[in-house]
Amino acid sequence: MIVETDVLVRFAETDQMGIVHHATYLLYFEVGRVAFSKAVNASYNELEQAGFSLAVVEAKVRFAAPARFDQKLAIRTWIRKASSRAVTFAYEIVDGMTTQRVVTGHTRHICVDREGKVRRIPGKWYQAIKDNEYGE
Amino acid sequence: MIVETDVLVRFAETDQMGIVHHATYLLYFEVGRVAFSKAVNASYNELEQAGFSLAVVEAKVRFAAPARFDQKLAIRTWIRKASSRAVTFAYEIVDGMTTQRVVTGHTRHICVDREGKVRRIPGKWYQAIKDNEYGE
Amino acid sequence: MIVETDVLVRFAETDQMGIVHHATYLLYFEVGRVAFSKAVNASYNELEQAGFSLAVVEAKVRFAAPARFDQKLAIRTWIRKASSRAVTFAYEIVDGMTTQRVVTGHTRHICVDREGKVRRIPGKWYQAIKDNEYGE
Amino acid sequence: MIVETDVLVRFAETDQMGIVHHATYLLYFEVGRVAFSKAVNASYNELEQAGFSLAVVEAKVRFAAPARFDQKLAIRTWIRKASSRAVTFAYEIVDGMTTQRVVTGHTRHICVDREGKVRRIPGKWYQAIKDNEYGE
Repeated sequence: MIVETDVLVRFAETDQMGIVHHATYLLYFEVGRVAFSKAVNASYNELEQAGFSLAVVEAKVRFAAPARFDQKLAIRTWIRKASSRAVTFAYEIVDGMTTQRVVTGHTRHICVDREGKVRRIPGKWYQAIKDNEYGE
Repeated sequence: MIVETDVLVRFAETDQMGIVHHATYLLYFEVGRVAFSKAVNASYNELEQAGFSLAVVEAKVRFAAPARFDQKLAIRTWIRKASSRAVTFAYEIVDGMTTQRVVTGHTRHICVDREGKVRRIPGKWYQAIKDNEYGE
Repeated sequence: MIVETDVLVRFAETDQMGIVHHATYLLYFEVGRVAFSKAVNASYNELEQAGFSLAVVEAKVRFAAPARFDQKLAIRTWIRKASSRAVTFAYEIVDGMTTQRVVTGHTRHICVDREGKVRRIPGKWYQAIKDNEYGE
Repeated sequence: MIVETDVLVRFAETDQMGIVHHATYLLYFEVGRVAFSKAVNASYNELEQAGFSLAVVEAKVRFAAPARFDQKLAIRTWIRKASSRAVTFAYEIVDGMTTQRVVTGHTRHICVDREGKVRRIPGKWYQAIKDNEYGE
């Protein structure tokens, strides 16, 4: 399962180099995760409301080509690896028209409760994540 | 009482026009409010920890001159008007060296609790705010 | 002419009050302007590429209700007033489902070239703006 | 050479988990690089004005502990590896008082001109970077 969702680059996301500032891609990855969670019927918003979060413990981004204001980008999100308490999402962002690669990356998360204590990923979400493990 | 605090423009705060993106100034105003609250011994962080927030109900910014990457800016913050449940902060941001005006503005706030209900500003903070009302 | 476009609140746009941080709405207004410019066939991206910008000289936001993570918002954008060198956009952001009002506001802009000098809004864009002046 | 610079967490940098949003640390790393460049008399701002940029080609962050609103953080920045066209900065962000580790990471950069073409790092900057290579 790879879930694809679009974003349109905002003006505020550019910097004085005339390209999308590199930190923005972590926000796009997050948009990808949220779209993924809905596509597998395990909404991240509901997980938050249930008192859990997938805290980021590692993030990596490789930049292949710059993106620019008003460019349509496609964010592809999948699950590289899942366990009872942790999940690694992987991403590829490409130009929405040419499919030229813009960035790739991954984020690793652990499930925590509102006190920040590590917890098992609750059943419904764990099942959705495990069923949709994709690999590299 | 006017409290002055400095910021150094970050690269990420610029946009492709080569200047500080206009939304950034609301973040600088917030930096100014936090500095003000400490200067009058009524820390905004402690107000938050006590379960209250000063929710923004109105914000206005007038842009006089652009600011650029790595420019040192001085944020001047004061209280225009205070009442038992509301407070209006005013701001002037100037170049840290030439004192040339960059932006001016204000934000109006009401005190709310964690459920978002309007509440009186707790005593310590109200006193600090009222004692330091400055006017236009 | 009122142009409506949607955004889905991103997780990163929330703050520790659990609501959308107030500065985010200036970014949403910008998304609204860009959508407006396309709807009237006078793309803001092309204006930038032609060497002009609509620099913000004033921004005002009134906050009516908080918005939350993953909420779908509709941004309504129109032109309040246009002249040869300046334009004022007005905005109303509402919940995408209930149409409950979230924020209203306006931004005033002047046309500048790459050196920051005030210039007439180039013909094609001026025509599109003037033809679609809407008023309050 | 390790350069240390401070930031105070801004309210807008928190998210609804009540902690600093993870993307913020890439902005702090950038603040660290800018401080480093000044400490070695090779200002990044001047490099930009000379027509060059250090484009980010890879970024990695490991999150050790959450940071919170109004927390003072110390950003430690050093050069892990430098060559004629590329440089890798490494970072450790710790609590400004307890020195508890918050995040670690690195960013890899290549020197590009305004057209985005890979170029040698200009002499003055290359010398400053090479002279201050620190390693892991």
